[in-house]
Amino acid sequence: MSTAIDRPGSGHPPIREQISRLPDSKIRTISLKGAGRPDLIPLWFGESDEPTPDFIKRAAAAALAADHTFYAPNSGVPELRAEIVAYMNRTYGLRVALDRITVTTSGMHGIMLVMQALIDPGDTVAVVGPVWPNCRETVRVLGGAPTDVTLRERDGRWHLDSQELFDACGPRTRAIFINSPGNPTGWMMSAAQQAEILDFCRRRGIWIVTDDVYARLVYDRDPAPSFIALAEPDDAVIAVNSFSKSWSMTGWRLGWLTAPADLVTDFAKLNEYNLAGPTTFVQHAGAVALRDGDAYIGDLVERLRRRRDLVSQRLSAFPRVRFAPPEAAFYAFFAVAGEPDSVAFAERILAETGVGLAPGAAFGPAGEGYLRLCFASSERSLSAAMDRLEPYLS
Amino acid sequence: MSTAIDRPGSGHPPIREQISRLPDSKIRTISLKGAGRPDLIPLWFGESDEPTPDFIKRAAAAALAADHTFYAPNSGVPELRAEIVAYMNRTYGLRVALDRITVTTSGMHGIMLVMQALIDPGDTVAVVGPVWPNCRETVRVLGGAPTDVTLRERDGRWHLDSQELFDACGPRTRAIFINSPGNPTGWMMSAAQQAEILDFCRRRGIWIVTDDVYARLVYDRDPAPSFIALAEPDDAVIAVNSFSKSWSMTGWRLGWLTAPADLVTDFAKLNEYNLAGPTTFVQHAGAVALRDGDAYIGDLVERLRRRRDLVSQRLSAFPRVRFAPPEAAFYAFFAVAGEPDSVAFAERILAETGVGLAPGAAFGPAGEGYLRLCFASSERSLSAAMDRLEPYLS
Repeated sequence: MSTAIDRPGSGHPPIREQISRLPDSKIRTISLKGAGRPDLIPLWFGESDEPTPDFIKRAAAAALAADHTFYAPNSGVPELRAEIVAYMNRTYGLRVALDRITVTTSGMHGIMLVMQALIDPGDTVAVVGPVWPNCRETVRVLGGAPTDVTLRERDGRWHLDSQELFDACGPRTRAIFINSPGNPTGWMMSAAQQAEILDFCRRRGIWIVTDDVYARLVYDRDPAPSFIALAEPDDAVIAVNSFSKSWSMTGWRLGWLTAPADLVTDFAKLNEYNLAGPTTFVQHAGAVALRDGDAYIGDLVERLRRRRDLVSQRLSAFPRVRFAPPEAAFYAFFAVAGEPDSVAFAERILAETGVGLAPGAAFGPAGEGYLRLCFASSERSLSAAMDRLEPYLS
Repeated sequence: MSTAIDRPGSGHPPIREQISRLPDSKIRTISLKGAGRPDLIPLWFGESDEPTPDFIKRAAAAALAADHTFYAPNSGVPELRAEIVAYMNRTYGLRVALDRITVTTSGMHGIMLVMQALIDPGDTVAVVGPVWPNCRETVRVLGGAPTDVTLRERDGRWHLDSQELFDACGPRTRAIFINSPGNPTGWMMSAAQQAEILDFCRRRGIWIVTDDVYARLVYDRDPAPSFIALAEPDDAVIAVNSFSKSWSMTGWRLGWLTAPADLVTDFAKLNEYNLAGPTTFVQHAGAVALRDGDAYIGDLVERLRRRRDLVSQRLSAFPRVRFAPPEAAFYAFFAVAGEPDSVAFAERILAETGVGLAPGAAFGPAGEGYLRLCFASSERSLSAAMDRLEPYLS
């Protein structure tokens, strides 16, 4: 049949420039270079090497056997929403109303729904980084623009200067995005600084999007401080949560939003017009994860603490490495003297040692010069990785 | 703490006007009115009353037991993409390349990804309706505007006037959205008309988004004609598919896109920046559904044919009913003389009989005056529903 089109090279008109310009995830890109390598030690993804615990898998199998295979309500399965309320209340000492909760198809999709609710083309979001890259690109998909606000490494800790954040907020700033405890830095914002930022945002009418997915993976307290614990129910604060990290459920795609109650119908509509909601029997398993999962999280944090200590000790012994030990989450984020190009360095390490690290440039300009190592792997894997890395970091 | 905010009634700034203005799904709205009613016969959702068949549930349980609980590649699990290629090739007689396939978290989310790729604010999409409402609202979420193009009921069949469609395409029209076989009408576009529209779109540089989720639920052939079978691989045609209807997997949230190969990296990025991708073990079950599911679909179509005949016979006997018997899909879409307000009429029927129908107004202005009945329920339920409806339709 006729293909009478005069564009060279392609039979179809272009897609949006905004979308063709989206960068690849530099984590996904380097991981593809290592695919299939038999000696690979993959420490690039933000994911534990442990499969999901059995009690959650059993709950999913039971929900399947009970034929929970039909459409579910847009805000989520009632049993799961009730467990989320109970979880939020016992974890943060709150009294959250059920209609503040929307179940989402991962923490990531929670962020997409929030940005769809807030971002008109031309709006900006102040993003505190280095931070995992996706939140920035989500804003760009919607025609908005992220503004970078940079954490500073000082005296072996990461710090945010509140005034720098406030100065980055202009007339089109609709939201501040803060991931604390933070990926990739392991930084954790204090409740005092959260109160200061909340006060600023109240005065300026700016939303706070608080990505709390590492809230339980903390080494000196439980949970991490969260804006959601400070805020009034109708404050402009939306907390994003995920089952991926604390319950080792990355591949399940399940999370939730806690937001002012009057937004629940808006988020229900956005769920409907994006994808209806998460897999129904996965939601039933999520209810069991929340109900019975605190012991698992406690054990996971102890395993992660040993792994953090192992990696910290080894990294500290390497003279070229500069490293702020993480207060939370499961990443070591370290700079190597004389290696300013993180993508090239991570690719060289992968090619020559088979250890898969994420380049710091993946986390925004402030991450350049760093490498991220996810230490949610067995001590045996981590020790082997450290042995292989030693000649490159010494 | 201080809540020194001077907006009355709410402690937070508003969300986007575009989002607060989104209508509720009129199907979801009426379904909430019937929730918990013991004598309810729910025929409002586009969903079979059969749970997912055992061979697919077993595949999901096996994938869970095999610890397929980790992140998966953004374009989809390789085993599933390979089965999709095999399915497309044997179903349509094509030779589809693997890189034309992107796995999506439902057909609905496939549409969202496509619209994110195509729609800048102010762009328009010509939508042929009456049609299920979500595609219109997805365009609005992204700041675009749907343009309605109306099917006409004539001589007991639904027809699309191609010239009306062409006249609706202006300088900002980026895409035409066609759902054939169509929900709610059961209309099916001929291959000849598809060729005519493809030719127009090639000349005008307009994308065709073809929603093929009912492609296998057809009563006089298999599959329904699809643009994807007519188009060259790099034509501006994107086919949306879903596991929901043909494999009775509505609650699983799984679908796929077939698109020009050069878009596969764009869709991978959009998957990443929306939600990474569908649940990993659900994707493994989807591969088994495609590999082993043709016999199930054949049996399902036979069951649906009997149900369609039952509903058609009963409806035809009611003097106030005007009804074009569906050529495909699993809906009866009928008008009732003297009942111009479909929402009020559906609510009255629900309140007085316990039969849950979707009001035609849910499907756009052209649907007003109609009711949609999903006949993917047991003959016993359908007979009971018809008995209860008889006094209202006679």
